[in-house]
Amino acid sequence: MAPIAINADRLSARIDILGEMERKSDGGCSRLALSDADRRGRDQVVEWMHEAGLAVRIDQIGNITGMRSGRSAVRPVMTGSHIDTVGNGGRYDGIYGVIAGLEVLQSLQDADRVTERPLAVTVFTNEEGVRFQPDMMGSLVYSGGLALEEALNSKATDGARVGDELKRIGYAGTERCGEPIPHAFIELHIEQGPILDLQHGLLGAVENLQGISWQEVTIRGVSNHAGTTPMQLRHDAGYCAARIGVFVRELARRMGASQVGTVGSIRLTPNLINVIPNQAVVSIDLRNTDDTLLMAAEKEFTAFLETLAQEEAVTIGTRALVRTQPVVFDASVLQAIEAVAAELKLPIRRMTSGAGHDAQMMARICPTAMIFVPSVGGISHNPREFTERKHLQIGADALLRTMLRLAAS
Amino acid sequence: MAPIAINADRLSARIDILGEMERKSDGGCSRLALSDADRRGRDQVVEWMHEAGLAVRIDQIGNITGMRSGRSAVRPVMTGSHIDTVGNGGRYDGIYGVIAGLEVLQSLQDADRVTERPLAVTVFTNEEGVRFQPDMMGSLVYSGGLALEEALNSKATDGARVGDELKRIGYAGTERCGEPIPHAFIELHIEQGPILDLQHGLLGAVENLQGISWQEVTIRGVSNHAGTTPMQLRHDAGYCAARIGVFVRELARRMGASQVGTVGSIRLTPNLINVIPNQAVVSIDLRNTDDTLLMAAEKEFTAFLETLAQEEAVTIGTRALVRTQPVVFDASVLQAIEAVAAELKLPIRRMTSGAGHDAQMMARICPTAMIFVPSVGGISHNPREFTERKHLQIGADALLRTMLRLAAS
Repeated sequence: MAPIAINADRLSARIDILGEMERKSDGGCSRLALSDADRRGRDQVVEWMHEAGLAVRIDQIGNITGMRSGRSAVRPVMTGSHIDTVGNGGRYDGIYGVIAGLEVLQSLQDADRVTERPLAVTVFTNEEGVRFQPDMMGSLVYSGGLALEEALNSKATDGARVGDELKRIGYAGTERCGEPIPHAFIELHIEQGPILDLQHGLLGAVENLQGISWQEVTIRGVSNHAGTTPMQLRHDAGYCAARIGVFVRELARRMGASQVGTVGSIRLTPNLINVIPNQAVVSIDLRNTDDTLLMAAEKEFTAFLETLAQEEAVTIGTRALVRTQPVVFDASVLQAIEAVAAELKLPIRRMTSGAGHDAQMMARICPTAMIFVPSVGGISHNPREFTERKHLQIGADALLRTMLRLAAS
Repeated sequence: MAPIAINADRLSARIDILGEMERKSDGGCSRLALSDADRRGRDQVVEWMHEAGLAVRIDQIGNITGMRSGRSAVRPVMTGSHIDTVGNGGRYDGIYGVIAGLEVLQSLQDADRVTERPLAVTVFTNEEGVRFQPDMMGSLVYSGGLALEEALNSKATDGARVGDELKRIGYAGTERCGEPIPHAFIELHIEQGPILDLQHGLLGAVENLQGISWQEVTIRGVSNHAGTTPMQLRHDAGYCAARIGVFVRELARRMGASQVGTVGSIRLTPNLINVIPNQAVVSIDLRNTDDTLLMAAEKEFTAFLETLAQEEAVTIGTRALVRTQPVVFDASVLQAIEAVAAELKLPIRRMTSGAGHDAQMMARICPTAMIFVPSVGGISHNPREFTERKHLQIGADALLRTMLRLAAS
């Protein structure tokens, strides 16, 4: 068979069309899940699926799957991602994976190439979780991790209900969720981190995904005058917040390996220059690919808070916000990705995903892995999110060849 | 001569009358400088001055002085404070000193006691500096530290001008600012800190007042994903804010003595749980009674920021907000206060004021000191500000006797 490649012009053009549709003045893109913008994006993708000769299947949580038959009516090799964005996001996060998957199927169509197994590309509903909770909703329902009814009843802060919004935008499908069960699932995505860009545009074979532990810590001390209160009589909630910020960094550095830790949010009360804060609310984000280590980090942090509360005679309360398990992707899918990279003479490295992706949900029901392409500067969830055209092309070609390999068996 | 004492019932009743006039639903009191509430309070105090038989003098910055003649027409012994409050303050800060001073003069009037020197009680304009800058405006102009015209032209955030507001509320006086020059000035005030309350209700002889150094530090780092950014690649402005909070505590503890340091305000951007902050704005409040030591603290802090900026590869800028010199009060006035305490068998300790007071301005032009009474729990600038009635009485009696001593020479 002649070597086959995706159409890089069409790939880039379609990403730009979706980006321009909801372009904001600063160049960013806003397509919140189940909004009118989401409807416009979905309608466009469905039109392209029809153009590519795909059978379009819309399930009850609004996931859109474009199907291309194989020689055998067996489980398909599936790719997919999402087209919803954060409030002011970029044009690559999620969208690249959807358009590249579509491009893979359409390139095969253009070349009249028939695979052994069927191929599929899915647009999952509400990956970002900005308007409706939980995030990765469509893939979570697909993989049986969340009951359909519960997802449909999820309400936005604006009062809208997922089920009603799906009907309103015309994507309350009738197909059962969770079908077809894929033979394998592979998601192509921008890295959203700096590693590949710093290493001169490597590809990434994503072998695992961090477990995430989010906590909110509330410290209650005593508000007092910054001039008249001797240091040894203070119960300074702001100082405790600072100690937490320093501890989280030390903890992550000491544990090393994949452990990261971030204090992204601190809110002091009353937050005035000459008043000792009586309250601090601090966010803690701990991540590790190894759940045992992540639990150890959580435990150390809890012990630190106990000591701090005693030392400063303050009250410290914690609230668990999110806790997800690490995910380990499938060795055989990873080997297929690496074999393709070798074939294409593309440098590639194994890596960890620090962000959540639909693939982590699909990993519950079928062999799954991901391919990452570089994000310039590691910037994502930001209008400045950018991936070079050559990397868009390389990633899509790697996806094409990996799907062909997986679909041959 | 028979021993003389102030009228404790009248003292407490008048404090409560002023408090109730502007009482808020949470029990707090709001009497911003040169507001209608300030006019009501001034009118009430002037009425009481007339009731006490005092000659009332209003100067061009709106300071109100009640004068009682002595046997000699020489420089008077003056007391005084302010009746303006912060946005939601208590009923003792400033007000106690004014009402107690008035009570001293009225008690002498009631007892037909004539002193060698004249006595005076002054209500200074805009001590708090909430609505108009700078704070301690009335006493600053009185002591020649700020030109009258400059003070009159000071504008509030709401656009109002001091000069216009003085006219509007009827307190644009015609008397020259800075007259009479006192023989001595003594201010009675609640401590606004916890020291006297913790020591079972001591009196305080205030021997000095901290110099204050206020800075705003702005750290600019790089915003990035909390999951995908390796620890060693971070330029985390939030972490730098935390390091500053910990350093300021360590610095104050290490220097000991009167050195205090507070980080009361931290503002992170974007302040989200899963985003490394790209900006932090941090307030620094350093105080010491010794200017050489305060300068050393500032220098150490600056050096720390330089090291931190290098270590974390962030940009750190600082903005000086306030810098006042420490003030040392007059030894002879302090000795008079201590002699009175001994005479009344009241336990008393020398102490430092952590807050600014009109007395620090008056110290520029005459021998000056302060008497502090306990603040329950050290709470001030707060509706829960409270001083026990017996301490209000003790403080006013000590003021009376101290003024008598100083007025005898």
